[in-house]
Amino acid sequence: MYRAPVDEIAFTLKHVAGLEEALASGALGDLGADLVDAVLAEAGRFATEEVAPLYKAGDEAGAVLKDAAVTTPPGWKDLYTRWREGGWNSLTGPEEYGGQGLPMMLSVAVLEMWNSASMAFGIGPTLTMGAVEALEKHATDDLKRNYLEKLVSGEWMGTMNLTEPQAGSDLAALRARAERAEGGAYRIFGQKIFITYGEHDFTDNIVHLVLARLPDAPAGTRGISLFLVPKFLVNEDGSLGARNDVFCSGLEHKLGIHGSPTCTMIYGDGFGDVGTGAIGWLVGEENKGLACMFTMMNNARLAVGMQGVAIAEAAFQKALAYANERRQGRAASYTGEGMAPIVHHPDVQRNLLTMKALTQIARSISYNCAHAIDMAGVSDGPEAQHWRDRANLLTPLAKAFSTDVGVDVASLGVQVHGGMGYIEETGAAAFYRDARIAPIYEGTNGIQAIDLVTRKLLLGEGRHVHGYIEELGAVTASLNGKDGFGRSTDLLQTALADLTEATRYLQEKLAGNSVQEALSGATPYLRLFSLAAGGVYLARAALADQSGERVALARFFAENMLGEVRALKERVTGGAESLGLAGASLITA
Amino acid sequence: MYRAPVDEIAFTLKHVAGLEEALASGALGDLGADLVDAVLAEAGRFATEEVAPLYKAGDEAGAVLKDAAVTTPPGWKDLYTRWREGGWNSLTGPEEYGGQGLPMMLSVAVLEMWNSASMAFGIGPTLTMGAVEALEKHATDDLKRNYLEKLVSGEWMGTMNLTEPQAGSDLAALRARAERAEGGAYRIFGQKIFITYGEHDFTDNIVHLVLARLPDAPAGTRGISLFLVPKFLVNEDGSLGARNDVFCSGLEHKLGIHGSPTCTMIYGDGFGDVGTGAIGWLVGEENKGLACMFTMMNNARLAVGMQGVAIAEAAFQKALAYANERRQGRAASYTGEGMAPIVHHPDVQRNLLTMKALTQIARSISYNCAHAIDMAGVSDGPEAQHWRDRANLLTPLAKAFSTDVGVDVASLGVQVHGGMGYIEETGAAAFYRDARIAPIYEGTNGIQAIDLVTRKLLLGEGRHVHGYIEELGAVTASLNGKDGFGRSTDLLQTALADLTEATRYLQEKLAGNSVQEALSGATPYLRLFSLAAGGVYLARAALADQSGERVALARFFAENMLGEVRALKERVTGGAESLGLAGASLITA
Repeated sequence: MYRAPVDEIAFTLKHVAGLEEALASGALGDLGADLVDAVLAEAGRFATEEVAPLYKAGDEAGAVLKDAAVTTPPGWKDLYTRWREGGWNSLTGPEEYGGQGLPMMLSVAVLEMWNSASMAFGIGPTLTMGAVEALEKHATDDLKRNYLEKLVSGEWMGTMNLTEPQAGSDLAALRARAERAEGGAYRIFGQKIFITYGEHDFTDNIVHLVLARLPDAPAGTRGISLFLVPKFLVNEDGSLGARNDVFCSGLEHKLGIHGSPTCTMIYGDGFGDVGTGAIGWLVGEENKGLACMFTMMNNARLAVGMQGVAIAEAAFQKALAYANERRQGRAASYTGEGMAPIVHHPDVQRNLLTMKALTQIARSISYNCAHAIDMAGVSDGPEAQHWRDRANLLTPLAKAFSTDVGVDVASLGVQVHGGMGYIEETGAAAFYRDARIAPIYEGTNGIQAIDLVTRKLLLGEGRHVHGYIEELGAVTASLNGKDGFGRSTDLLQTALADLTEATRYLQEKLAGNSVQEALSGATPYLRLFSLAAGGVYLARAALADQSGERVALARFFAENMLGEVRALKERVTGGAESLGLAGASLITA
Repeated sequence: MYRAPVDEIAFTLKHVAGLEEALASGALGDLGADLVDAVLAEAGRFATEEVAPLYKAGDEAGAVLKDAAVTTPPGWKDLYTRWREGGWNSLTGPEEYGGQGLPMMLSVAVLEMWNSASMAFGIGPTLTMGAVEALEKHATDDLKRNYLEKLVSGEWMGTMNLTEPQAGSDLAALRARAERAEGGAYRIFGQKIFITYGEHDFTDNIVHLVLARLPDAPAGTRGISLFLVPKFLVNEDGSLGARNDVFCSGLEHKLGIHGSPTCTMIYGDGFGDVGTGAIGWLVGEENKGLACMFTMMNNARLAVGMQGVAIAEAAFQKALAYANERRQGRAASYTGEGMAPIVHHPDVQRNLLTMKALTQIARSISYNCAHAIDMAGVSDGPEAQHWRDRANLLTPLAKAFSTDVGVDVASLGVQVHGGMGYIEETGAAAFYRDARIAPIYEGTNGIQAIDLVTRKLLLGEGRHVHGYIEELGAVTASLNGKDGFGRSTDLLQTALADLTEATRYLQEKLAGNSVQEALSGATPYLRLFSLAAGGVYLARAALADQSGERVALARFFAENMLGEVRALKERVTGGAESLGLAGASLITA
């Protein structure tokens, strides 16, 4: 069973992601290390003792739809209530609306814990956080007054309604429509699919944020508006009023995250108490909905990245425990009685170390992304811009690399368990099932890579990324003369040189209008970038704690796994032509 | 829906795996290309039209246990009957017992088709094939007379009973016991787990091959004997007699291959009609059971490798079809109306080409392994030894690399489908679930790698492997001056040089008694070997058919994917020390 790695999380925040300096500099106001530690410890307790024990019920029973009502798995409604009453929903919410205003670094740390304990449970509140953020930044005061406090407390939950059958990655194809109605309101019509927690029994009301088109809107993405559509209208006194015309018509039968209801939502079929058309209110300006949605999508991407980290951590813990318990064969390092615990076999160690290193790298990248978001929020002028750029640069890495890691580590976790890994009761297989959605939703990992290459490499006129690589180089240089790192310094410097070369190559292609070449190399480049940065983060952790274990892990990674960077660089800089030639043969449509 | 790629399979057999030369030389007797083509075409029809449509029923209904009887999914019993009546079970069986005596090359080709159409269905007959092989080689004439004909025809099915809760990879820990009984028979007692098709309704009788220990047997693997234990005893006239004391007490709840019953088998609880203790007969000599079992395990490993190829092929087909149908966004190469089919996006092409190349490589390695088995069977003296060595060398590659490919390609297949990939109805997720067992059973892939390094690199006093690499080098040299291969020749030569270097390094470590270093590098070495050999096989295919598509694929692979070989070589030759140091910290037991 999962135990929240509170010490590891605190260490990574403080020594790898910059929390210690941020606290010391006063950048985070009166937040102190004591409060940080207390929050992490209590979240760890809640995740370990309250959430994790209900994981299996969620996976086995799943969410159930009957008569347009969704019942969550046994015990989950109470769990949610205890969770929000513990203040976990309001952690980062604006203080004006009852939130605790704590930094994103703490938010991602506790998100990791909820998602390790149960990804299907952890995904729900992420959507509420996104709704709070979008409303805080873009909604009218009236909407804020009516909705924000209860979304911040978690008394109500929020959703994001983007996808339609013909419009997934490409929101330009969106068809849901909005008509102007009485009193400044709108009526919404259309079908949305894949709506996470679109309907459930956790809360009395659900606040949908919905993308739709006005009748006179331009075609494409510039004609999309964002609307707030509550399940129940809210009366003047804050009590719940009429049932709105939005209903769940189906739940998806998914590979994993069974506890999380994935809903088809129908707007405007005339089944509520308000006539035909779901009543909604504009958020932000007409036709500017996509910009509002992107506000929340950036942080949602980081949150999904945390799911990758979370699954990897949980899968690693389970595999490590099994490898220390299961005995088979003999091993040189085992001198006890009988068969050796399989953790003594080099092949099992290789699997476990690969899992451990990848998990820590994904965590480090994601926490650093959160750090940049926090620093941007407390800075001004060029410094704020620097941190915004940093957060924007790291977001696709945090989302795509971490979720790929989630899948790979969960798969290795099954392998370490041998035949038992394939049996559902063991639980290793459930991580493998759950993990597989994260590289897909919130923008597929392919789209993250394209975002990284075509937008993020251009930040600061193309200089921001090189500044970041230089910072990584400075950490690497400080390894010189330190014991135990083996060939790490040289290997990291080579990897950073390859990262620089690949970056310049892609920047030149973009400047030269050779976008096709840049797109061809995007996914290998994202992985290259993540491995090189991750190797440096492992080294940074080892510099902060030279007790041996971290040094050995950093060295293992550099000497066993960093070699992939060279291959990826060659793929980025030399693979496009043959990809295009061979790719043409795939096209029949 | 899966369509058997009959032309591709025939091409690979003939031009990449040596079938054409074998036919031309007369090595395969009077077998001609016409018969080969006819068999493949008819198997393709059966897999496509009869097996594949029942895949979903198997996955959804699964096998069901009630009162010790297992019911297979709706339609499967009839399917099995049609399948064996079509002669598919007897394809490679000995002619003396009604088999058709066709080569292993045809066997693996049709195995691929059954497993692409339904891996849960395809796995069953594989066990029967193994039982036929073990009995043919090791059983007494009496046993052969009573059992072989019906196992060859498929009227009865066979099983392999090895695993016990404490004895998985390590058979030395096996505890099932056998007592000498009346008339040369034995009584078997104990529990076996993970027994594929241990109980079912396909056939009237089931013939279990069971490993157990005699009371006076030495400890460890030298005290294990092999027994034949039928579900029903067989009367003198061939009719079925008393119900034996072997029963299925439970089915595993597995991640995938739901249609295949994975049974816990109880021997000797006294529930049959024969008193207490399942009646069995010795196969081979007492205490030599493991050697008999290994006879069938080699070919079973190749058969599991075919499951990897099969799942990869099916997943690729589904993803390719979806990518040509699903439309999202714009793409440079699409000039039609509206959104582009996603196959036009470079990132999607990269995923699909990766899937295609890996699938063809795994197929090529596996078919070459089958070719070596066939050639060994029709040769004498040193030539037979040469081909036996070749088959032994390629078996761990065929098993481990192909099944890793199965998982990776199925995972990419889910990704290409986007959100739809995560929905069970689409079918992409089922491949991802099914594929995950193949790297585990029939010897985990870690064990395959250890087998490759510690046993197969020693064949022919260490020379056989270098002879093989030289053959690959000769194919590579013949690319010189050919159009369209880009930098393939250089890249393949570099990869083969890395393969040679890694091979020599491991051979030296083994000779120097540094087994730990060799074990540490085993898994990366197996992948290195497979990628380098696979790249040459893609080139060989392209040399045989220079129509463009194969040349482009070979070049794509060399320029985009072969770079991993260098990283793997560095891991093999330079990773052991840091693995050992970091690995020590994982051990708590």
